Amino acid sequence: MSKNISILGSTGSIGRQALEIVRSDSDLRAVALAARSDIRKLKDQIYEFRPRMVCVYDRDKMDELYQELRQEAVLSAKDMPELVSGMEGLCKAASFDEADTSLISVVGMIGIRPTIAAIRAHKKIALANKETLVCAGHIIMPMVREEGVELMPIDSEHSAIYQCLMGEEHESISRILLTASGGPFRGKKREELSSVGPEDALRHPNWSMGAKITIDSATMVNKALEVMEARWLFDVGIDQIDPIIQPRSIIHSMVEFRDGAIKAQLGAPSMLVPIAFSLYAPKRPPIPSEPKLDLLEVSSISFEKPDMDTFKGLALGIEAGKQGGLMPTVFNAANEEAVSLFLGKKIGFLDIADGIGAAMQRATDKRDPELSDILMTEEWSRSFIRQYFNIGEQRI
Amino acid sequence: MSKNISILGSTGSIGRQALEIVRSDSDLRAVALAARSDIRKLKDQIYEFRPRMVCVYDRDKMDELYQELRQEAVLSAKDMPELVSGMEGLCKAASFDEADTSLISVVGMIGIRPTIAAIRAHKKIALANKETLVCAGHIIMPMVREEGVELMPIDSEHSAIYQCLMGEEHESISRILLTASGGPFRGKKREELSSVGPEDALRHPNWSMGAKITIDSATMVNKALEVMEARWLFDVGIDQIDPIIQPRSIIHSMVEFRDGAIKAQLGAPSMLVPIAFSLYAPKRPPIPSEPKLDLLEVSSISFEKPDMDTFKGLALGIEAGKQGGLMPTVFNAANEEAVSLFLGKKIGFLDIADGIGAAMQRATDKRDPELSDILMTEEWSRSFIRQYFNIGEQRI
Repeated sequence: MSKNISILGSTGSIGRQALEIVRSDSDLRAVALAARSDIRKLKDQIYEFRPRMVCVYDRDKMDELYQELRQEAVLSAKDMPELVSGMEGLCKAASFDEADTSLISVVGMIGIRPTIAAIRAHKKIALANKETLVCAGHIIMPMVREEGVELMPIDSEHSAIYQCLMGEEHESISRILLTASGGPFRGKKREELSSVGPEDALRHPNWSMGAKITIDSATMVNKALEVMEARWLFDVGIDQIDPIIQPRSIIHSMVEFRDGAIKAQLGAPSMLVPIAFSLYAPKRPPIPSEPKLDLLEVSSISFEKPDMDTFKGLALGIEAGKQGGLMPTVFNAANEEAVSLFLGKKIGFLDIADGIGAAMQRATDKRDPELSDILMTEEWSRSFIRQYFNIGEQRI
Repeated sequence: MSKNISILGSTGSIGRQALEIVRSDSDLRAVALAARSDIRKLKDQIYEFRPRMVCVYDRDKMDELYQELRQEAVLSAKDMPELVSGMEGLCKAASFDEADTSLISVVGMIGIRPTIAAIRAHKKIALANKETLVCAGHIIMPMVREEGVELMPIDSEHSAIYQCLMGEEHESISRILLTASGGPFRGKKREELSSVGPEDALRHPNWSMGAKITIDSATMVNKALEVMEARWLFDVGIDQIDPIIQPRSIIHSMVEFRDGAIKAQLGAPSMLVPIAFSLYAPKRPPIPSEPKLDLLEVSSISFEKPDMDTFKGLALGIEAGKQGGLMPTVFNAANEEAVSLFLGKKIGFLDIADGIGAAMQRATDKRDPELSDILMTEEWSRSFIRQYFNIGEQRI
């Protein structure tokens, strides 16, 4: 069980919910907090949780925060946290001495180095950052085993799979049934999606999430990234992971065993359960404010096969996962850049998957890439997408 | 993992399926077999499985079997099993030296003493007999703990709950959601059931079972017995067990935890998985001939609240479970006798629950009854039902 937690990405949705759990349990402490630049939220968190270390990734914002903390003088000198910044600061926060657990909920490739720092420092890892495993699973997982640290997934799907596997032997796994809501365009055909804009894609039926991840849910790229993560987390082949549509997100995922039994984890669509579980497992203390799932009210749960023709991003991601090497990085970075262009109304909805497909065709692959290869390929993929859609070099 | 198994009730449905598993796995042996009187089936099983001990509960049938085995001379003298009979024989088979596991699938109160004998002999218990826990759970469970033996449930619902609890802590349990198909009369109202006959009740939509248990499914008395069993198996209060209707029997039961997470076990409606699981757990080797559940074909799973007004037997059973003492025995024995009268067309469908209710009202209860009290109460309840319906003393 976690006690002293370092939260990277404390001002984001996962980070704030993690702090909600810390707030409700006097046995938990947030000893380090890290955010990109939102020093308004961060300052409130510092005053409430009194962390011993605070990282603001943006150096200028860190200076600004420092001035404000001094000026407002709410904290006594001894309560002032150590302030750090940049990638070095993030890694310091992730491996902070006083923490037993690093909860890594920063978004993007930026999460990889701090995760490595935390593993090397023998922290328990509560991982909400997808890119770490998608792009660098082949580096991270051997390191996790070598250092003997615990790696807990925070994604609701992966937490569900982890829960279904408790007490089970690895060789009993037949396949993983990774559930997907299907997003707002489930049931639509390709031609119906050509004129879809960001406002349409941002209406997700079940989960309230950030813009990027909501678009990933609409394209089902999100599910492809989850397939790749699951492959590393649970040490199974990509072909042992089948996405299955379960529109209302009641079942968070399932595992089928060799004897034909299937185990499923269900719950209200809330991230509080997987976040709390990543901290408390195998214990399950009650979570204040957690809505219970009423199956009588749900009344029915239905299943569908994902439409890989319409949602080409899902098929491409599974292909990238099968190829391995640098392909998952190409897939992920091309998607990030294309989604950013789509949100800026520079390209259409179907262009996202087309761009990813083109990047994957043009990319040069490499077996067992190092972190430097991965980061270079990220840059290459982003600039490929900008060129492919004839967009200037400056970021949108 | 089990190796050498004693199967009590080897000619019944569970027993034959257990032997199917033994047949498919050269690491398993059926070292003892016991049946009530069906020596035709038993002889085939002896020739195929070469058990070291065979019990025929009926003494005359045992003699008959002995003569036939000698006459047919298929077995050499050294392959001849030791033949035993009666309750003493059943207990000998249950506690047979060469067995590590006793699979107890005899039907009725007759299962209690052999189960006790097996526990005292430190066998792992694979339990398909309901009455043992329903009527004598307060005797059996302390004995299981005292002797430190493993008790594996074979009922699909209880096996599902057991599987959902693997790796979990007991204090994490919030409640058990015990699924029920609702039987052939789900959705019907009381008045529609007054003229129902055995032929209508024997048509179960999902499971193929014996007549008695099929009627119990139609009255939902079966579910009440399962609630009482679950209470002992999983050491929870009766009010922590909620029956929930899931008409197609895809979900075999669920557990809700304190953090709001729900775990479910699903599968094709086949007893092979829970039987195999009781022998192999926590391992799950593939089961030959086991049909896989295709959730895309299932397409949807729905839930309903059980109708306790129409299915009074369910409400009465939960009440009997809450009262404890001798009430579960009264409930179970009154039901057995009433079902037998119903199958013999002596009473109507709704009379079953009415008879049970009357028996429960008239019975004298006792706290912590001993086995002798339980067996006497069984007799009292049976004769109460016969008198209540003005039926002569001879059994139907």
